[in-house]
Amino acid sequence: MGEICDEVESREWYLASYASEGVPTSDHLKLRTVRLSLAADAIPDGHLALELLFVSIDPYLRSRMTGLLDGLHSDPYQLNQVITAFGIGKVVRSKNSEFEEGDIVLHPFIPVAEYCVVKSHMFKKIDPNTAISLPDFLSCLGVPGFAAWVGIEVLAEPKPGSNVFISAASGGVGMFAGQLAKLRGCRVIGSTGSDDKVKLIKEEFGYDDGFNYHKETDYDAALSRYFPNGIDVYVDNVGGKMLEAVLNHVNKFARIPLCGMISQYNKVWREREGVRNLLNMVGKEVRMEGFMVRSHLHRFGEFAAAMEGYMKQGKVKSRNKINLGIHSFLDSLASVFSSSNDGKVIIQVKPRV
Amino acid sequence: MGEICDEVESREWYLASYASEGVPTSDHLKLRTVRLSLAADAIPDGHLALELLFVSIDPYLRSRMTGLLDGLHSDPYQLNQVITAFGIGKVVRSKNSEFEEGDIVLHPFIPVAEYCVVKSHMFKKIDPNTAISLPDFLSCLGVPGFAAWVGIEVLAEPKPGSNVFISAASGGVGMFAGQLAKLRGCRVIGSTGSDDKVKLIKEEFGYDDGFNYHKETDYDAALSRYFPNGIDVYVDNVGGKMLEAVLNHVNKFARIPLCGMISQYNKVWREREGVRNLLNMVGKEVRMEGFMVRSHLHRFGEFAAAMEGYMKQGKVKSRNKINLGIHSFLDSLASVFSSSNDGKVIIQVKPRV
Repeated sequence: MGEICDEVESREWYLASYASEGVPTSDHLKLRTVRLSLAADAIPDGHLALELLFVSIDPYLRSRMTGLLDGLHSDPYQLNQVITAFGIGKVVRSKNSEFEEGDIVLHPFIPVAEYCVVKSHMFKKIDPNTAISLPDFLSCLGVPGFAAWVGIEVLAEPKPGSNVFISAASGGVGMFAGQLAKLRGCRVIGSTGSDDKVKLIKEEFGYDDGFNYHKETDYDAALSRYFPNGIDVYVDNVGGKMLEAVLNHVNKFARIPLCGMISQYNKVWREREGVRNLLNMVGKEVRMEGFMVRSHLHRFGEFAAAMEGYMKQGKVKSRNKINLGIHSFLDSLASVFSSSNDGKVIIQVKPRV
Repeated sequence: MGEICDEVESREWYLASYASEGVPTSDHLKLRTVRLSLAADAIPDGHLALELLFVSIDPYLRSRMTGLLDGLHSDPYQLNQVITAFGIGKVVRSKNSEFEEGDIVLHPFIPVAEYCVVKSHMFKKIDPNTAISLPDFLSCLGVPGFAAWVGIEVLAEPKPGSNVFISAASGGVGMFAGQLAKLRGCRVIGSTGSDDKVKLIKEEFGYDDGFNYHKETDYDAALSRYFPNGIDVYVDNVGGKMLEAVLNHVNKFARIPLCGMISQYNKVWREREGVRNLLNMVGKEVRMEGFMVRSHLHRFGEFAAAMEGYMKQGKVKSRNKINLGIHSFLDSLASVFSSSNDGKVIIQVKPRV
């Protein structure tokens, strides 16, 4: 181990108060420093001492900060407790015979702390010889890539030539959903939050076209123009007014996998935008289906094999927005709601891994 | 034929003006009398001359009166043209070798006229020896029975012990959906518009319980009480606020077949009640699916065999509200929206068949 002292100072993010509305601020999430003993005899049997390397910033984390069980129904963060997220750590002490010091491990609920001592059966070792970069394990091979795959391959199953619409098209899920739909031979249009991102989804991710929803604020008019033949599949990442607009353009038997509704996370449910035209789902016989990736984990291997293949063949491209340092967590989370990012937001906790 | 003259006076309902909002009135639907020749040489080849016996009053007819293609996306009625509905007629002249005078036939789009001369490949003969009453061909064996069967048996597939909620529970679709769910061993609760109808669904249709939504106007509180363990299946016949309330009580993997949304038919879509908590569909991984029975016609035979069996064994009961005379069409349609009926609304055109 060498560079790891027996006692370390570790900065960690904890929930100071619930955030029912708005983007969480430093009133809700605070950074504190704790002292942690990493001495071999201080680590209980079965536990790992980890140094955090990368943290995945996913919109769903927002729903764990409300103290309420609604919407995504994710387990709420507990007040004054360290928060957790999908992340990658390095084993610095092991009291678990399946892991050695130096192993790089993934965990869906790793403490957002520079160091931690934890026991879990959910650690997964990353092959040290993999050609995949560590951040890509949190994007194309992580939650967003898997969510995109479940949405397109399991729920929507678009046919060649189908008209597919993706909202938040340059975001973590959107960029992969669009590319997977293109691989199935679909016509794919995306909405995103800036002209640069429209350019990105077309030039980098192969979308047929796209529009900036901040400029084209009449969604109905935009969808009329981009979908003269209607929409067969809509991968919804935003909810609200965009979902309502889509329901005025759906084709018979359209499928709408609901992956998330980022436009709605910062509002209590009674303040959320109501969708008034669900009746179209009857006449057009539309199937709308919410999903969480954890219910599809039995197919993760199939997904990972397919996605690794696409990556190696250059058929799917990944873009990660890497923010440096654990202190960047709060700003990183806020950035997800301001549509100021390209691609998947990831925190690199140490300057060098 | 005997009693049928070669020329008859026939009253028929036609669309005088579109009804975008509210319950249609005599401004929109008018009765007129036309003279029609039924002389053998006046009937073109392939045509049938029919005397109308029964007309099925289904909520979806409302959507054909707006002049708009939205919501149910049913073909609009044309101005000044006779309207059509699911109905039963008697053949009074036949120029179609498959039918004889005196045959009783069903048609999904029969003119709402005392007499008509039409050509169609969609006529279906009713076995004169059937034990089923003619009105029941429009209810348990007609559109509402089939819609209930598709909702429960094809889309929802509830398991024994599942918690099933049915809105408009004593209406055409509701009464059969509830009974079919009971036959699958579910716990079934219904909402309906009067205390008498709550009694009816419990005593006649075997619902475990029910509530009067005019009295229990806090739907959320009502659902908390009737579904302490949450809702696994909701057959939605009303939409709007009731659907929103249900989405606060859904269990993981709940299924919501959308059969219709009667609370919303009399409003233009921008005025309809928005559903604000669709985000619950993500966290609870809910599938919501609209359907029209015409897309499931390939399974009609299977349905009809099952339903006839249930009827003969007394396992499914039917209740029809029969209104007399073709003049009653407008009031019959309005009654569907005022929740003043038990069971399926049917017009018997002649006092005796």
